[in-house]
Amino acid sequence: MLTNRRTISVEWGDCDAAGIVYFPRYFEWFDACTAALFRAAGFQKRDLLETYGIAGFPVVDARARFAVSSTFGDEVVVESTITRFGRSSFDVQHRLLRGDEVAVEGFETRVWTKREPGAHSTLKSHPIPQEVIARFTSV
Amino acid sequence: MLTNRRTISVEWGDCDAAGIVYFPRYFEWFDACTAALFRAAGFQKRDLLETYGIAGFPVVDARARFAVSSTFGDEVVVESTITRFGRSSFDVQHRLLRGDEVAVEGFETRVWTKREPGAHSTLKSHPIPQEVIARFTSV
Amino acid sequence: MLTNRRTISVEWGDCDAAGIVYFPRYFEWFDACTAALFRAAGFQKRDLLETYGIAGFPVVDARARFAVSSTFGDEVVVESTITRFGRSSFDVQHRLLRGDEVAVEGFETRVWTKREPGAHSTLKSHPIPQEVIARFTSV
Amino acid sequence: MLTNRRTISVEWGDCDAAGIVYFPRYFEWFDACTAALFRAAGFQKRDLLETYGIAGFPVVDARARFAVSSTFGDEVVVESTITRFGRSSFDVQHRLLRGDEVAVEGFETRVWTKREPGAHSTLKSHPIPQEVIARFTSV
Repeated sequence: MLTNRRTISVEWGDCDAAGIVYFPRYFEWFDACTAALFRAAGFQKRDLLETYGIAGFPVVDARARFAVSSTFGDEVVVESTITRFGRSSFDVQHRLLRGDEVAVEGFETRVWTKREPGAHSTLKSHPIPQEVIARFTSV
Repeated sequence: MLTNRRTISVEWGDCDAAGIVYFPRYFEWFDACTAALFRAAGFQKRDLLETYGIAGFPVVDARARFAVSSTFGDEVVVESTITRFGRSSFDVQHRLLRGDEVAVEGFETRVWTKREPGAHSTLKSHPIPQEVIARFTSV
Repeated sequence: MLTNRRTISVEWGDCDAAGIVYFPRYFEWFDACTAALFRAAGFQKRDLLETYGIAGFPVVDARARFAVSSTFGDEVVVESTITRFGRSSFDVQHRLLRGDEVAVEGFETRVWTKREPGAHSTLKSHPIPQEVIARFTSV
Repeated sequence: MLTNRRTISVEWGDCDAAGIVYFPRYFEWFDACTAALFRAAGFQKRDLLETYGIAGFPVVDARARFAVSSTFGDEVVVESTITRFGRSSFDVQHRLLRGDEVAVEGFETRVWTKREPGAHSTLKSHPIPQEVIARFTSV
């Protein structure tokens, strides 16, 4: 499976009053890392939305385990990979590293969705195209 | 002019590593206070988008002066009012109060915009409907 | 166990480009709901830090399952309760309701921590005082 | 005066329901760009706090003018420079560029502050050390 590595600079504004990264920020970073993983596979998110007519691939389950805290001025690396492709959903795993140490582990389950027609449109799952899956698995 | 008052509870996650509200949060609050001011005038933002076919009223100029800091556990009040209506733009003023003291003053200039047709659609200014203006000025 | 209910107004700035709440916002809300649950038990977070000399009760495990999306203009209610007290950790459960429907479920494991003395101080777990636990369980 | 350039990747989570960057994000970016400008001058923010015993250099006035919007997938560059050093305050200017075009201009006035001793400590302005100023002006 394709793995992408991304360096993140921890900023003052990412930290809470205890001086450590406010934990929802990790979920924002992991979300951006999933987009970066798709770019590494050749898919700009904007192009994906246009090409496949999708509304996105929203998260239906997100989890993170926080072992070691970080603070402003730190540089961390996130390794991201897709660990499972289902029919219309997939799992992403993120490992945030401080040096060799895994500081935070993140997990997302996402669903490939299209917007239903109608005035109050809702999102509905759709099969993930095989050529999308192939770009991650043929590595 | 119609004025709206809104109480905000300062949360742990609003504060930075110095233990005071991270200043971009004030701009988020002021943005929500502008939406609340429109609700007080009888306009849900969602309905406005549908009724008038607008993309929103994005900020083209934003400013804030910070006199007194706040921290988690504080309750503050924001007083918001529109201080000017132009043809397609308007100015909003926000005063964030701690008791009787003005802790932060905020200013926004916003533009009434519609999305231009086309593949790479852009936003374009449009005249603000008189019946919208009337709801703020006839108070 | 004490349960706290909190109403949240979904704002424009909470939503992403798909027009639905950006999922890390739910973790911010749940964090604020945990603080509100402590307030309902009689503990202002600021007082807790001073009284018990703690640095906070950071999250070591956070999870959320997203069943139904929300958008700006919506009002949702979050019901929060502590489902387990360990020696130095505790679990919080959040149920975000749209009417009678559970739209999002959130789970946090948090650790009662003090700052270790020293130049590069780290956080260390400490036993949760019995009088703190009693306020949640004696309901 | 020292000028620092920083590239920013616009993420999905930076955008609002209109699909453009939510304007408070620019203030977060500019704050991070000020920290990056100090790093370019040889000062890690963390070291500054320790070396000079300051609580930080909080913003007392912030302004931004938004000419051109950006969306997820875009790469923008921010040029930051200090335009004025006073006794205890200084002004920072940021120009966010899309190609050759200035899309957003930002302005911050910041104050060099120390925490006053006491139970409910407040922040108080202090003279900016000459060796700090020299690193920006001797370029």
